[in-house]
Amino acid sequence: MTEDMFENIGLIAKYGDIQVKDCLNLLISFLLKRHLNVFVDASSADLLSHTNINVAANTEALGQNCDLIIVIGGDGTLLQAARLLAKYDVCLLGINLGRLGFLSDISPKEMEKYLGEILNGAYNSEDRLLIYAEVYRDKACLSYCNALNDIVIHRGNLSHMLTFETMIDGHFVNCQRADGLVVATPTGSTAYALSAGGPLIYPSLNALVLVTICPHTLSSRPLVIDGDSHIQITIVHDRIEQAQLNADGVLCQTLIPGDRVIIEKRQHIRLIHPEKHDHFAILRAKLDWSKSIYTHLND
Amino acid sequence: MTEDMFENIGLIAKYGDIQVKDCLNLLISFLLKRHLNVFVDASSADLLSHTNINVAANTEALGQNCDLIIVIGGDGTLLQAARLLAKYDVCLLGINLGRLGFLSDISPKEMEKYLGEILNGAYNSEDRLLIYAEVYRDKACLSYCNALNDIVIHRGNLSHMLTFETMIDGHFVNCQRADGLVVATPTGSTAYALSAGGPLIYPSLNALVLVTICPHTLSSRPLVIDGDSHIQITIVHDRIEQAQLNADGVLCQTLIPGDRVIIEKRQHIRLIHPEKHDHFAILRAKLDWSKSIYTHLND
Amino acid sequence: MTEDMFENIGLIAKYGDIQVKDCLNLLISFLLKRHLNVFVDASSADLLSHTNINVAANTEALGQNCDLIIVIGGDGTLLQAARLLAKYDVCLLGINLGRLGFLSDISPKEMEKYLGEILNGAYNSEDRLLIYAEVYRDKACLSYCNALNDIVIHRGNLSHMLTFETMIDGHFVNCQRADGLVVATPTGSTAYALSAGGPLIYPSLNALVLVTICPHTLSSRPLVIDGDSHIQITIVHDRIEQAQLNADGVLCQTLIPGDRVIIEKRQHIRLIHPEKHDHFAILRAKLDWSKSIYTHLND
Amino acid sequence: MTEDMFENIGLIAKYGDIQVKDCLNLLISFLLKRHLNVFVDASSADLLSHTNINVAANTEALGQNCDLIIVIGGDGTLLQAARLLAKYDVCLLGINLGRLGFLSDISPKEMEKYLGEILNGAYNSEDRLLIYAEVYRDKACLSYCNALNDIVIHRGNLSHMLTFETMIDGHFVNCQRADGLVVATPTGSTAYALSAGGPLIYPSLNALVLVTICPHTLSSRPLVIDGDSHIQITIVHDRIEQAQLNADGVLCQTLIPGDRVIIEKRQHIRLIHPEKHDHFAILRAKLDWSKSIYTHLND
Repeated sequence: MTEDMFENIGLIAKYGDIQVKDCLNLLISFLLKRHLNVFVDASSADLLSHTNINVAANTEALGQNCDLIIVIGGDGTLLQAARLLAKYDVCLLGINLGRLGFLSDISPKEMEKYLGEILNGAYNSEDRLLIYAEVYRDKACLSYCNALNDIVIHRGNLSHMLTFETMIDGHFVNCQRADGLVVATPTGSTAYALSAGGPLIYPSLNALVLVTICPHTLSSRPLVIDGDSHIQITIVHDRIEQAQLNADGVLCQTLIPGDRVIIEKRQHIRLIHPEKHDHFAILRAKLDWSKSIYTHLND
Repeated sequence: MTEDMFENIGLIAKYGDIQVKDCLNLLISFLLKRHLNVFVDASSADLLSHTNINVAANTEALGQNCDLIIVIGGDGTLLQAARLLAKYDVCLLGINLGRLGFLSDISPKEMEKYLGEILNGAYNSEDRLLIYAEVYRDKACLSYCNALNDIVIHRGNLSHMLTFETMIDGHFVNCQRADGLVVATPTGSTAYALSAGGPLIYPSLNALVLVTICPHTLSSRPLVIDGDSHIQITIVHDRIEQAQLNADGVLCQTLIPGDRVIIEKRQHIRLIHPEKHDHFAILRAKLDWSKSIYTHLND
Repeated sequence: MTEDMFENIGLIAKYGDIQVKDCLNLLISFLLKRHLNVFVDASSADLLSHTNINVAANTEALGQNCDLIIVIGGDGTLLQAARLLAKYDVCLLGINLGRLGFLSDISPKEMEKYLGEILNGAYNSEDRLLIYAEVYRDKACLSYCNALNDIVIHRGNLSHMLTFETMIDGHFVNCQRADGLVVATPTGSTAYALSAGGPLIYPSLNALVLVTICPHTLSSRPLVIDGDSHIQITIVHDRIEQAQLNADGVLCQTLIPGDRVIIEKRQHIRLIHPEKHDHFAILRAKLDWSKSIYTHLND
Repeated sequence: MTEDMFENIGLIAKYGDIQVKDCLNLLISFLLKRHLNVFVDASSADLLSHTNINVAANTEALGQNCDLIIVIGGDGTLLQAARLLAKYDVCLLGINLGRLGFLSDISPKEMEKYLGEILNGAYNSEDRLLIYAEVYRDKACLSYCNALNDIVIHRGNLSHMLTFETMIDGHFVNCQRADGLVVATPTGSTAYALSAGGPLIYPSLNALVLVTICPHTLSSRPLVIDGDSHIQITIVHDRIEQAQLNADGVLCQTLIPGDRVIIEKRQHIRLIHPEKHDHFAILRAKLDWSKSIYTHLND
């Protein structure tokens, strides 16, 4: 499909990875040849071989000035960029460092070919929802964070189990003892939630999944709910000193008994893919679905 | 909430269950006192103590004449009624025989109380999607069936494994060797799909879940997709004599290699519940979520 | 380690597989050069290029005359040979057709190298237990079978669930509704039991595992018990017409309500491996344990 | 069966639980009436209503002087006593506080009845194996601990994943990225290992199970090995600051990259049960195996 053309291109490269330097500069040359406006994130400024490139003060400034942001790195780098850029009306494109990512699906080798097509307007775009967590202690909002993959409540230490109560849209769901709880977006369904036993969710589905980590109750199962649900988790254990609230694997807040965590969909990012993009092809490659472990009985 | 009033009430009772007779006749007396028009399914006619009750020739006739159909029995009876009635614009209400069902959530004891409220217009209604399967051999449609819970493709005999290929919306997903595949609605996510390892899905979510039964590929995981997806399963094994296609546990068609099964959402039913209805309360009761299997370490 | 030398070598080749012919005749030449007595299974006689090779009337005759039986084919061929040969005091060696098996772990390419070492007395041997199932109807023993992988009780048709009661060493364990039950040896723990959710069991452990297939009870878990346990499964469902009893995937007996299946360890086979054999290396290769599905968060 | 008579009885009561006082003193009266020598653990001395009771300086002193130690509390209290007493030749008996435990299976109500039988020599005894972990940094043994349930290696914080390498009996098994690893005894197979997805193991089986917590590799499965195996886990991640080693849920040591944990069976305890004791009955009660979640399809 042919869509809007991009003119102002922001670039973010994985911080501290020497391998990205060549890729970044190659990309800049490629974009300059096409007479596009190029902005580079401040964190990547020291990697520049070119002179006279606009360096944005920070990622937010990129968001304000660009219509396409290209992220060079793995899924982790793109996750971080997405959280910062979700409030701007920009498109994101991920270029990996040779290892296929769920989000960064263009390899350095394919970069020029696919980018050429994309800049000609031939691309797919898809919206990915982000979730937002607010922590309330007594009646005050203590902190908040957003996540493209998941919000995780976890006991940080092994000696004490976490007990927490879940409400969805004002309805009591259950009170569980477990190592923790993952609230994942469809995007996050291929990350930590999957390790914890959750299902795969097609990226465009407007849904969230709650996966309990090491539940005491053996009949606990992952719960898939509407993406517009209002989730409230209350820490009820009387002994735990400090549980953790993490957003995309980054510590957001330590939690104490009585703390309430409100989780809701808010914001989205727009991911750009080559036209041939196929989510199932990525699943097959990353989950190695061609592998059948035992031989035919007629072997 | 106060909604439309029901005037023409159809009654279906579980076939062959002697226990339902009292419940059915009590229900009829209750409805007649309220001056409602009562129609009884032909299969329940011999249970009638009342005379002068309209007996519908079959379930379809009920669908044409009634705006509310009350089903006395368990979830199985309601599933069967739903499949037959999905093409009519009717509401369904389930009264169980003492054992809480996911669908038949009103007990005989509560029947008069809740039915009174419902007939006064105080009730919740929710739409549940049904799926529809068509089997193609060569280019001809061989047979079709609908299901409120699930469509299951399964090898009927143990000696040979089933190999099948899945496409979603025209995209190849994978080729699997397994005992079979469950394609379940949110309603069916608490039935066979759950035994096979699937997640719980909130009933109103517009989604379907594919759960592979005993997959050879250890990285197989349940896949939750949009409810409007077009699913195609092709039997590719060269040796299997006969696989089975079942709809809500009822044999619909035997399958041979090359057969294609097309599965799509089609139709819905409208379930009526008392106002206090709470899906999570039913989950807690049926899945016994209050049970924690091991003691606190400080015991 | 250096062990007993083999002198009388039996050969069994996968029936009906044209690919094995070269491998078989290469193997015979190799053995004749070492002046060993070679016996070929009757089922493989028509594959012989050599003349003057002893053809055994059947697999049992091989068992009586040989001290080492080499099986050319996959795990399925070796399973079948093992069931027939378990009552003889012979060693088994598996040569695969290019695809690594759990049991047939020598590839055609490595055949001469490893066989040379083995015939020089440099090999590992390990005993693998077999289980034995007897079916009782009323008080008569209806049939029996043995298995190196597993005994499986399974409903053959989807419409009706199987209900069965399990006793171990005279103690009632539980009564379950499910698709079936796998009773697996450690050898079988990498086969169907694994697909059904069972654990991996180290081959030499004297243990059995019971894995319920698609259990209705969500707290059902695989149960690992002593290898010398006496297991009794009774079909208790009142409606099922015919369930199936399978041994290593081969139908042994159809079951009706009231039938009792007694399962116990009986017999063993001795598997021969090259000295470098490493069960964990095979697990890593077959289960693809090097695959990590999602990228480091610092990508 | 009638076995040895007990004469010197030690008593340990759950620390800090007011509810145990009555139970402890009732028990002492019962034992004194039978003219048995009673020793009370120092931690329970302030609960005594009786005077002239021998108070042992510590749990080890109980181990030296007693042939039966009765533990009043839950499984947690008995676990702790077992770790301390494993090096003495004593029997342990658990009395719970009203909630059935896997280990503490006698309720206060049944206490006098069953204890009378047991003291008359009518009881079952069973050996339960303990495991022992040693932590090596460079070549020095940093610390060690024993466990009746499990040794758990776990990342204490969410932001960084744990990478570790497992060797069994000198053979490399795999290198995993995960939240952690549970090495459980059969006794521990009903505790944390079960929450993490492990199988049930019959208590008397000489086996251990390794269960990976939230593994990245989707084909990871619990691994059941011989109880006499030598397990070595090496922390290989280059970024993790501090992982945790826990024994029965108690922090034993913080771990850094390069640390090696050696785990082996060592010691056992002898558990005393009433003659009617049945492990499967406890499993049924605690795992709620009578619960079937969905209704018969003929409902």
